[in-house]
This record gives sequence, C-alpha cells and structure tokens, in this order.
Amino acid sequence: MSAPKKVVLAYSGGLDTSIILKWLQTEYGCEVVTFTADLGQGEELEPARKKAEMLGIKPENIFIEDVREEFVRDFVFPMFRANALYEGEYLLGTSIARPLISKRLVEIAAETGADAVSHGATGKGNDQVRFELAAYALNPDITVIAPWREWDLSSRTKLLEFAEQHQIPIAKDKRGEAPFSVDANLLHTSSEGKVLEDPAEAAPDYVYQRTVAPEDAPDTPEIITIGFEKGDAVSINGEAMSPATILTALNDYGRKHGIGRLDFVENRFVGMKSRGVYETPGGTILLQAHRGIEQITLDSGAGHLKDSIMPRYAELIYNGFWYSPEREMLQALIDKSQEHVTGTVTLKLYKGSVFTVARDSDHSLYSEAHVTFEEDAGAYNQEDAAGFIQLNALRLKLLAARDRRLKD
Amino acid sequence: MSAPKKVVLAYSGGLDTSIILKWLQTEYGCEVVTFTADLGQGEELEPARKKAEMLGIKPENIFIEDVREEFVRDFVFPMFRANALYEGEYLLGTSIARPLISKRLVEIAAETGADAVSHGATGKGNDQVRFELAAYALNPDITVIAPWREWDLSSRTKLLEFAEQHQIPIAKDKRGEAPFSVDANLLHTSSEGKVLEDPAEAAPDYVYQRTVAPEDAPDTPEIITIGFEKGDAVSINGEAMSPATILTALNDYGRKHGIGRLDFVENRFVGMKSRGVYETPGGTILLQAHRGIEQITLDSGAGHLKDSIMPRYAELIYNGFWYSPEREMLQALIDKSQEHVTGTVTLKLYKGSVFTVARDSDHSLYSEAHVTFEEDAGAYNQEDAAGFIQLNALRLKLLAARDRRLKD
Amino acid sequence: MSAPKKVVLAYSGGLDTSIILKWLQTEYGCEVVTFTADLGQGEELEPARKKAEMLGIKPENIFIEDVREEFVRDFVFPMFRANALYEGEYLLGTSIARPLISKRLVEIAAETGADAVSHGATGKGNDQVRFELAAYALNPDITVIAPWREWDLSSRTKLLEFAEQHQIPIAKDKRGEAPFSVDANLLHTSSEGKVLEDPAEAAPDYVYQRTVAPEDAPDTPEIITIGFEKGDAVSINGEAMSPATILTALNDYGRKHGIGRLDFVENRFVGMKSRGVYETPGGTILLQAHRGIEQITLDSGAGHLKDSIMPRYAELIYNGFWYSPEREMLQALIDKSQEHVTGTVTLKLYKGSVFTVARDSDHSLYSEAHVTFEEDAGAYNQEDAAGFIQLNALRLKLLAARDRRLKD
Amino acid sequence: MSAPKKVVLAYSGGLDTSIILKWLQTEYGCEVVTFTADLGQGEELEPARKKAEMLGIKPENIFIEDVREEFVRDFVFPMFRANALYEGEYLLGTSIARPLISKRLVEIAAETGADAVSHGATGKGNDQVRFELAAYALNPDITVIAPWREWDLSSRTKLLEFAEQHQIPIAKDKRGEAPFSVDANLLHTSSEGKVLEDPAEAAPDYVYQRTVAPEDAPDTPEIITIGFEKGDAVSINGEAMSPATILTALNDYGRKHGIGRLDFVENRFVGMKSRGVYETPGGTILLQAHRGIEQITLDSGAGHLKDSIMPRYAELIYNGFWYSPEREMLQALIDKSQEHVTGTVTLKLYKGSVFTVARDSDHSLYSEAHVTFEEDAGAYNQEDAAGFIQLNALRLKLLAARDRRLKD
Repeated sequence: MSAPKKVVLAYSGGLDTSIILKWLQTEYGCEVVTFTADLGQGEELEPARKKAEMLGIKPENIFIEDVREEFVRDFVFPMFRANALYEGEYLLGTSIARPLISKRLVEIAAETGADAVSHGATGKGNDQVRFELAAYALNPDITVIAPWREWDLSSRTKLLEFAEQHQIPIAKDKRGEAPFSVDANLLHTSSEGKVLEDPAEAAPDYVYQRTVAPEDAPDTPEIITIGFEKGDAVSINGEAMSPATILTALNDYGRKHGIGRLDFVENRFVGMKSRGVYETPGGTILLQAHRGIEQITLDSGAGHLKDSIMPRYAELIYNGFWYSPEREMLQALIDKSQEHVTGTVTLKLYKGSVFTVARDSDHSLYSEAHVTFEEDAGAYNQEDAAGFIQLNALRLKLLAARDRRLKD
Repeated sequence: MSAPKKVVLAYSGGLDTSIILKWLQTEYGCEVVTFTADLGQGEELEPARKKAEMLGIKPENIFIEDVREEFVRDFVFPMFRANALYEGEYLLGTSIARPLISKRLVEIAAETGADAVSHGATGKGNDQVRFELAAYALNPDITVIAPWREWDLSSRTKLLEFAEQHQIPIAKDKRGEAPFSVDANLLHTSSEGKVLEDPAEAAPDYVYQRTVAPEDAPDTPEIITIGFEKGDAVSINGEAMSPATILTALNDYGRKHGIGRLDFVENRFVGMKSRGVYETPGGTILLQAHRGIEQITLDSGAGHLKDSIMPRYAELIYNGFWYSPEREMLQALIDKSQEHVTGTVTLKLYKGSVFTVARDSDHSLYSEAHVTFEEDAGAYNQEDAAGFIQLNALRLKLLAARDRRLKD
Repeated sequence: MSAPKKVVLAYSGGLDTSIILKWLQTEYGCEVVTFTADLGQGEELEPARKKAEMLGIKPENIFIEDVREEFVRDFVFPMFRANALYEGEYLLGTSIARPLISKRLVEIAAETGADAVSHGATGKGNDQVRFELAAYALNPDITVIAPWREWDLSSRTKLLEFAEQHQIPIAKDKRGEAPFSVDANLLHTSSEGKVLEDPAEAAPDYVYQRTVAPEDAPDTPEIITIGFEKGDAVSINGEAMSPATILTALNDYGRKHGIGRLDFVENRFVGMKSRGVYETPGGTILLQAHRGIEQITLDSGAGHLKDSIMPRYAELIYNGFWYSPEREMLQALIDKSQEHVTGTVTLKLYKGSVFTVARDSDHSLYSEAHVTFEEDAGAYNQEDAAGFIQLNALRLKLLAARDRRLKD
Repeated sequence: MSAPKKVVLAYSGGLDTSIILKWLQTEYGCEVVTFTADLGQGEELEPARKKAEMLGIKPENIFIEDVREEFVRDFVFPMFRANALYEGEYLLGTSIARPLISKRLVEIAAETGADAVSHGATGKGNDQVRFELAAYALNPDITVIAPWREWDLSSRTKLLEFAEQHQIPIAKDKRGEAPFSVDANLLHTSSEGKVLEDPAEAAPDYVYQRTVAPEDAPDTPEIITIGFEKGDAVSINGEAMSPATILTALNDYGRKHGIGRLDFVENRFVGMKSRGVYETPGGTILLQAHRGIEQITLDSGAGHLKDSIMPRYAELIYNGFWYSPEREMLQALIDKSQEHVTGTVTLKLYKGSVFTVARDSDHSLYSEAHVTFEEDAGAYNQEDAAGFIQLNALRLKLLAARDRRLKD
C-alpha cells in the first residue's frame, strides 16, 4: 500500500487519541479528519471540537455527531432480538458499538476524499479487529492505521513525553496512570486492566461507575412495564418512546436498583483470556423483558431454533463480523421470528435483580384452555399422549431390544 | 399387550398415588409393588410405608429408598457440567429426577418379577413422557400404566368418592383443592396450575415455599467459596462434601438469600405453553459457580462448542430423552471438556442475586503475562494482530469488491 | 369433533383412493370433493375425472389441476437452495410434494365449504404426518380423516371385497398385489415395501422405473450447462426455461444417463427404519450444479452456516414441518444467502455420475489474483499468515503450557 | 525468539525441500534433522536418505519412517467415523495427514534436542496453518520456520539459481515448471495451481493421476463387501485386513473403476478461494460403505446429531485444529456413536460410481416386523400415529389460530 494522504480518525478528544492525531500528522504527514460520536458515553463532545481545532484540524474536517438513535435502533435492538449473550453472560456492549463507528469513519472518508481511517485500539484486544473488519467490509480499498501496533510509544512515560513535545495539553488527572481502562456507551460501561488483572482478586468497589451497589439500592422494589412491538421495546409504563430514549430510561432504572453488574473472564478473539467488569443496567432489564414477551408469543420451534443459533450470532458480533454474510443471514432468521413478538412485560426491580412477574399480549400463544387443570372442554385429548409417547419411544425400544438381543 | 399381573408404582404416600394404588388393584386386579424415593423432597417416607401396608401391600413389595446421593452424583451433576438451561432460564429440576425414578421402577420390576410400572403423571404434562420414555428405553417389553390417561376419575369430586369408597384416608387439608400443584426434590420446587394459570397475573407470594423473599433476606451479603474437581462441586468454603451434602448446603444458602426464584412460561413437549414458578436455590448458585470456574479453565474452542450444543442437550432432558444415544453422545462431549474444570470460585450472595467475584485454579488458562496492559516481556507480539486481521478480512474484502464491481 | 359433512379427498383415480372415496361416502355418509393434482407423476388425469363421476361425485366437486410449475417454483427450488439432503443422501422427493397437496386440499375445503380433508397414507409412514401437520397448520379447525388408521380393511382380500361390493372397477393388474409400492412426482420416484423389505437383499432391477441402468446408458459422456439466478436454475445450455420445464429437461438428461438412483435405509419420523429405492434424475443433477455455482459465488461464512443448518432444515421437511415458523426462519436465512448465486455451471453426465467440470459467474468471489502460484503483484501478503497463525495458535499454546505445567 | 540451533525438517527428498534444507543450513546456520514419512504417497523413501546424506545431514539425524498404519488407524479412520466432508464434497485427504507429520516432527525434536521444526508449505495455503497449529499444540515452546514466508526465493529462476549455487542436483524434469502442484498420500492425491487456476476451464485429463477415467473403467460392474467393527473397516470380501491394507485395497478398486474424482472450488482458511482436483478412490468407497452400515445400525437420534455437527468437525480438520479441545470433544461424541456400527455392506463399483446395494448386521435396528406392509402381528399400532400427529400439530394449530384471531 502507498502512504495514506488523508485519514479519518475516531477521535474522543482525550489524551490518547490526541496523541494519535498528532502522531498521524507527524509520522505520516497526512491530513487528519476527526470523527467524534455521541454514543451515549456521557461526555460532552464540544471540548473535542476545540481540542481538534487546537491541534490544527480544519473546521470542515471536524465531524461531531449524535448517533444514539441510530446506535440503538440499528445495532442494539437487532442484537437484543436474538437474546445475545457472549459466553453465557456478556451483553456485548462494546462489541456492538464498533461497527457503527467504522461505518461512519468509512462514510466520512468517502465524503472527504480520505484514503485511510485510524483508531485508538491496542494490538492485544478485540476492538482493533472489530474496527478493521468492519472498515474493510465496507470499503475493501481503505487503509487502516492502528498506531498502537505501529509506534514505539510503548510506555506511559514515552506517551507523555510525546504529548509534551507536541504541546498536547495533559489534564492533571491524566499524569498518573488510571487504575483501569474504561469504555462506555449508551448500552454499557466496561472496565478492564490493571487492578482487575488478577481474576482471583475481587474487583474494588470503585471500579463500578454506572450503577449503585445493590446494597445501596432502594429497599423497596419497583414495578415497571415494558411494551414491545415486533421484538423491539417501544414503551415504558405505557409511554411510547424512541429507541435511545427507552434505553436511557432503562439505564436510569437499572442504575438506581443496582442492576446489570458482571465480573467476567472472557475469551478474546485474539486468543487470550481477559477479565472485565461490565455494567449494563438498561440492557440487563431489556434482555429479561424480551425473554418474557417471547415466552408467550414465540412458538417452541421458533424459540428453540433461535436459542440454538444464538451463541454463534453472539460470537460473530464479539469477533467483529457484524458486516458479514453470515451475521446478516442469522439476522434474517431472527427478524423473521419477531413478527409477533408484541405485547407487554411487567418486571420487578430490586437490589441487583430483575424479575419477570407478568406478560400479556394479543399475540399470545399461551392457551389456558389447553393447559388448565380444570375441565378443558375437549381442547386437549389426553389419550393422544399415549400415541405420542409410543411413537417417540419406538426407536428407544428398538435400541433396548438390540442391547438385550446382543447380550443373550 | 396382555393385562399386567404385577405392577411397580411410583408411590409418594399421598392421596393421589394412594388412589392410583387402589385403582390398579381393583381395575387391573394386579399385585402392586410400591417404590417411594427420597429425592430430597423434604417429606418423611415412613408414613408411606404405613399407608402402603394399610392398603394391602405386602411388606416385601414396599421399597423405600434414599436416592439423594445417586440423584445428585449421576443426574444433577452431569447436567450441570453442561450449564443446562431450558429455554434460556429453567434449570430442569423436575425433568432430571424422572429418569432416576423410572430406572428404579424398572429395576424393581426385574427384581420382583413385575411386568408393568405405573406413575401418577397426567396426560397433559411432560412427566408422563419422561417416565415412559425412560422406562421403555430400559426395558422395551415393560408395560406402563398411566391411570390419569385411562380412568374416568376426571374431577376432584369423583376422586374423593373413589377414595372414600375404598377406605383411603383423606387428610383434612386435602378435602379442598390445592390452589396449585407442587413437585419437589433436592434440586428444586416447582409450582403450577390453578392460581398460576394466567401468565398476565403476578404469582401470589404464598406460592414460594422454598426460598425467602429477596426483600426478607439478610441485609448483609454473604461470601462463599465453592471448590470444583473435573466440573463437579466438591467443597464449600474448603470443606469437602458429598454431592447431595453440597447441594443441600447450597440450598440452605440460597433459601436464606432468596436466590433461585423464576416465574416462567415454557413450551411443553406435548405442544402447549404452561406457566410455572420454580425455586432452585442451590442450583442457581451452582450454575453461576460452574460458569465461573469454566471461565478460567475452559479454552474458548471447548467453551463455545459446549455453548452451541447446550440448548439441544437441555431440550433432550426436558423432553425425557435422558436414556437416548444422543444424550449420551452429548454427555461424552461435555464430560471430555471437564477434565480441567478444577479450582475454586468465590461468590457473593445477596437478596436474590449471586455474583461471581473471584476464581482461582491451578488449571487456569488465564495468562496475566499475555493480557497485561503493562510490558509483557514478549509474551504477545502485537504485530501478529495485523496479519490476523488481514486474513480474517480477506473474504470480507473480496465480498466488498464484488459489490463494488457489480454496481459499476 | 363432530362428524364431518363434506370432505376433500386427495384422489389419484387409482384403486386405493377410489375405495377410500366410497368408504367416506358409506362410513361417514358425507359429501366427497376430489382433488387430483398433476405433480409430474406421469399419469393422465382425465381418467380420474371419469372415475370420480362414476363413483357419484358431482362435477363441481371434482378438482383436477396442473400444479407442476407451483410445485417446482415454490417448493422444490426453495429446498434446493439449501442443498437439502436427508440423512446425507436422500433428496426428499416425496416429502416436498405433500405440503402443496395439503395446501390445495385446505384451500378447496374453504372454497367448497368442506369441513374435512382426507388422504390415502397409511398409519406407518411419514406421509400421514406430512399431510396432516400441513393441513392443521393452514386451518387449525379442519378435520383430517385417515382411513388407513381407522378402517378394518386390513388385508388385500378385504379391500378387494369392499371394492367389488361397491362396484369399484378393479384393473386386471391390480388383482394381484404389487411387488412394491410407488410414489412419483416431477422430482422423483420412490419404491418401497414387499420385495424391498430386506435391506440385506439387493433390489431387483425391475424396481427402477425412472432411469436407465448406468450399464445401459450411453457410452459417451454428455456435457450440459445450467444457468442460475439467485440460487434457482433458469436455463439449460443457454436456453431460458420455466422451473417445471427445467426440471423436466433435467429429468430427461438424468434418465438417459442413469443418474440419481439411491438404495437407502432411512429413519422415519414415526420411529422405525425403512428401506426405499429412490430415483431423482433431474434433482441429482440440479444439486450438483447448485453446489458448483455456490462454490464460486458464496463466501465461506455464508456457506459454512448454510451447511451447518442444512441437516435440520432437511429434517423439518422430511418430518412434515414445511409450514412451521422454524422452517420459514431457516428459509429466510437460506434465501438471504442466495442473492449472488448467479452464473453458469458446466456438468459432465456419464453412466450414473454427474461431475462439475467448470463454473463461471460475474458474481464470482474466486480471485485468481490472490490464489495464483505466480507473482501476485501484492494482492496477498504472505507475511500476514505468520500473525494469523500465531493468534490462532495462542490458545493452543496456552493449553499445551498448562498440560506441561501440571505434569511437572 | 532466539535463533534456532537445531531444526527438524519435513523432508520429501524433492528439489524444494532440498533447497529448504540447504537454506536452513546457510541462513540460520543450524543443524538440520530430516524426517521423511511414508504416508502412502507412492514414492521410494531411500533416495531421500541419500540426498540428505549428500547435503551433509548426519546419519543419526536422518529419520525415515513408514507411518501408513498409524495414519489410517489414528487419523483417517477416526475422521471417517464422522462421514466428514468439507463444504459438502471434499474428503480432507491433505488436511488429515498434516497433524501426523507435525506430531512426528515435534517428537523427533524432543528426541534429538532440536528447538525448531520446519516445513515446505507456502504462505498462501492451508498447510502452513495445519503444520504450525499442530506443532504449537504439541509443544508450545517450539519454533516453526516457514521458509516460503521468509526467504526471497520468490521465483522459479531464483530457486534454481540457489540450487545450482549450493550443488543441489536438479532432476531434468524439474528444470521446467510443473503445470500444477501435487500432494499425495494413502488417502488421496490433490492437484492445484497453474493450469487449474481458472475454475471456468475444465481440468485437462492429464491432471488425473490416481484413477482411470470413468470412460476407461471396466464395462462390467464389480461387487465387493466391506466389513465394519465399531465404525472402522476391518475386512473386504470376508478377508480381515489391517487399516492401511484395507485402504490400499480400496484404492486399487477405486482406481480401476474411476471412482473418487472431484473438481472443486473450496474456501481456504486463509480467506481466499482455490480450485483443486482431488482423487480419493478408496476413501470415496469407504465413505459410502460407512454410511451404508450406519443406515441400519445407527439410531436416528444418534445419526441426526452426528450429521448436525459434521460440518463443524470437518471444518476443524480442514483448518488445522486436529489437536484442539473441541475436535477431541467432537471425536468423543462421534466415537460414542460407533459402538454398534458393526456389520457388512455390499457395494457395486462401476465407471466412477459406488452404489450401496445391501447391508447386514447383527447390530441392526431395522425391524422388518415393524415396517412391513404385511400383517405386523401387533408390532406397531397404527392408532398411535393419530396421537403422535395431534400433539406434534398442537403448536401449529395454536399458531394458525393466532393468525386467524389477529386477522378478524
């Protein structure tokens, strides 16, 4: 590949990506375009504009966007239709944000005539893979620059030296090293590294930033009702809301009740295990609610098929294959199943837990007429069960007869 | 089939199976053998002996056995090695007990020369299927009598009449109808029917019998440590215990902290949906702990394969196919994965929740040397990630190039 | 259920369904509507009209339809998009025809005000299940009458007596028993029973009716080219054809070259094994061709996902669940994969075999630039492979290091 | 990694690996150990010894071994128990040989005190991955040298220059470039590259080396019988043989009858598509035979589970993960299924095709008593089918009733 001339950088405005910005200018001598997205990480974006300007970025090369609605509508909600959990427990809060960022990087590159994109993910993690697979899938000719894999700024000291040398302002609290690394968006906050690196040691309390401790949550449970249409949440307590508004509201409920904390050791795509602390307050409530509404609206054939492909779907998202034919094929399957996933679920929130207590739907497949312990007026003929069992047993009987025959 | 001459009945000593006992004697005119098992349901068994004797069963035909250790060792623990959950949430507490009961029924039939077995499950549920598939798989020539599918005692009134007519004593509290139906064993208590039949109505508090309400649980979290060997729990807080003893102890912890409640609508194998309330205090703790120890001892290839077959494994157990070639094949796969699932997990129990807070093992695959944010002394070469990503991206690039080519 | 008043019968015009027709009239005293479909079984349909009239069916109650195009377009082709094979070898020729017949039965019932449908499948086979599951899925209130499970005409002698008694004409060659049972449609001919019942005995030559013996096929291979669009065959040797026309033409090629014979023992859904002889001349060519075009147009992620769900898809069709949510979900996944399965495949047909010899497509993902043994002008960087291997190996190294550590 | 001191090279004795040998000596200055294996590739091995000696390898550093029995017994046969096919058609002949070679390389390294191994696979293919993953899985500290990824001998001219410069003898027929590249072992011969690089062009006849053309095969079919025990072939026409002897004999049959040719475009693990011509004469017969014996000895539950995991198993072998926990877990599952796969299969071989014509086994699950069209003496109660269908239909009826309800 030839040297890039213009690069779109995923820019947070923080120290690390500011150093990357400057490094791209000096190392590659190329024009830099910054893209700063509001994914609900809870930080002001305008300071990023000022910093970018200060670092010499032309105003027309500064892109700052609120993508929260797109994030929830086109990424988070489709994923939740699948009840996706990575390795049984993780709600994929970081993984699902990366494809959106890459998509905008590639689109802005096309708009601005840039031939490269760049990100601040390290060479040990999953995020580099997610950023880059998405970028290449959307533009096979794009160049991706991953400074952490290239440069020799391999220690905190060197980074700070580089910053000072290039007049990059260093906030006082950034002088020392953070005790762990954080990523946040509307779906979750993740923490990893440093004080969390020994999985045999409990995580310190101060790691948790997004939720109150269950012990500090209200002593009284709270009951809420979530409305669904075709698999997506559309209302809380009867009030219709947009996707991002709903997730924001669920985050507030979850934070208050200490819901969605997870201390987890996972397998990274790059081959090592890592330990993370995740806080997914609204997402944890949403998953439980979605399962609740599926319980009455999804047929067993559909539900069991979804369950059986879910781990693969989650793995694809975790590994960075959002823009792959197989993820899209699985999404087609999942979306097909959600046509009747419409109704309301009532949940109880209490000190770290979310319980489904009731579900209701015009689309319900639950038939009290069939299941009742009372007289069912012929809805179900118990004698059918005898034939059902006999034919299900037939092959087992033939197996047992063989065993007996061979023993004799 | 010819009329059975001697039948082994799964006998609880309660009113319903006493009526069945008498009905078998009168309807089929056959000798009855009773089998009463202590599966940890928390009831005295000796009254069952007296009742059986009173109903005319010969002493040598009364089998009363404590099978708790066998239950946990040979059924519950193998299932937990798989992290089995039916439809994402249910821990299969009823399903896993049935094969053991059927096994003993068939064995006792062989010992006593009986040609039939009988159970008290109705024609609408899963238990009939589980009892009968297991019986046929173990003895293809056995006859199974399912009185609830055969007799005309279709109302409470008729049952009580039959009982009175045959001098079966009726406890005072059995005169009226129970507000719901209960099944219990060492793993769980399930409740269903009657007051629970409308899934849009929250379950009344009195349905829960096995756990305190989270609201009534201690205000202070409790920390415990569970030791595992080859996938099975072997100790609590360093104290070695037998399988049933461990599950009993975990039940005590779970009950105290309000852990393991589930209000659930599930798909029965016979085709209808039903709503149940499950309490699985110890099992809920055990599942979380098992996942915790697997996090550090199981490689991703092994873990992801296990995850992908788990729904099928759980479905097989739910549907009654414990004694089937495919369950045994899956068990071989699962057991193979557990050879290094050895170590300890520390959990925090608090008001309905169980959190993994730490895990430790000599068999750990977690490598701080690789994952560290600090200098890794060459354990991991970040440049490798570039090649890894390029080759993973290659097919995505070829796809994108095709799309671009076809558009032009 | 109350007694049906009007029933739509799947009527072939043959002796067996004529007996059923009369039996429905006499046993149920109900009005009979006949449905006779041309599925490409190679029989004249007009005689069925005359026979029905002779048996007293009103002209407006006689439905005779050519459904070959619908059969291939809406059933056969969607199934071939999946490369469906039951138990590794069987092309599902009988299974795929049943849902279409049931659909028309139920539709005609709605048009004619009938409250029941009836078919001539026995109680031992899969077809009863397929007919009935499809009927119930399309009309949950329909009654299905399966005479073979109900009547006492359990021997050939009794059937012929019934026929004579009711003036049903018996063709001379139907007096004796057929040496095996046959089902045919545009996709295949199946033979089973009687002379085929011992799977340790080779099938007699006369069982094969649809194809010449490979030994009698031409001594010279024939080359043909099949064109595909979005996964469906659309042309042969450059000539565009309709779905049924293509399958008919492929059948001619296959028949001539002795292609598509299968002697097979399969597992029926009802629990027993059966042995069948199948001839699927055109379908066997079509499967090979479809695989050929997928080889160059389908990405590995898409292809491997398809392969992994194919057995389940095939099982669903075999078991009669065409009209089920899970079949439709899988179809959505499969269809999504076929968007670029467009191009041509060249095949060699010779004495029982079909070989793919070439494939070509504007949608090809094959890149000679990448794969070439010659200089690739930088298309592929061999050094990337080192990193790719290192990271794929990382977990294997960690596993090996653990084994070594534990041994020491 | 530090520079290797002693390296074990997979050495064929051919020009390419001789150049590698010399390059290792000159480039790394390290001692070279050669390992030459007889995997049934059909070449004399002793010339390799002479060549190695001539290139300065000490006699104690020359390892020449006949591993054919181990290859078939421990690699080929376990794989055939799974009916493994990669991407629906490829019998994995190259893939399955690599783990054995790597195993011996690593073992010989341990015996000789070598710290590295080396192979002659290029940087574009799958074999490098297979060699290296296997090596790392068996010794996490081994160094692997892949000269093709390292050196600058990037053209035929440069290679020949290097050979001449180092007095490596060049056979006359090696001066010009081979028109395609070949790999062979007892299971198959593969050809790829050069004249095969355009998948739209038919492969020239001269590519096929291992089998006669179907057109040139005998005009008379041949019937053979293969005996199986627990899933492995143990005899032909009643004569007991060792694993390698059986495969050799089946190769002779296949070669004679033109069986096992495959022209194929596949997806390489490294991300590109490639076209290969495979000849697997004995393996093609063996697969058909194994399927035939499974048809009568394997229960549907076992068979369908095997089918569903097969694609994943095949992919693991193709990608080089033979020594991985997940392959071993799947093998445990597969092997468990084979306990009763014992009996004989009769096959007809004719001009490129292999047909199963009969199968027989004491372990058969086929029950003529159940399946017969004749009177079955009560083996099967046709009325059971009604209940079986009703309960399988129940959920479909509930779905249809919902659709109807929502439409009203």
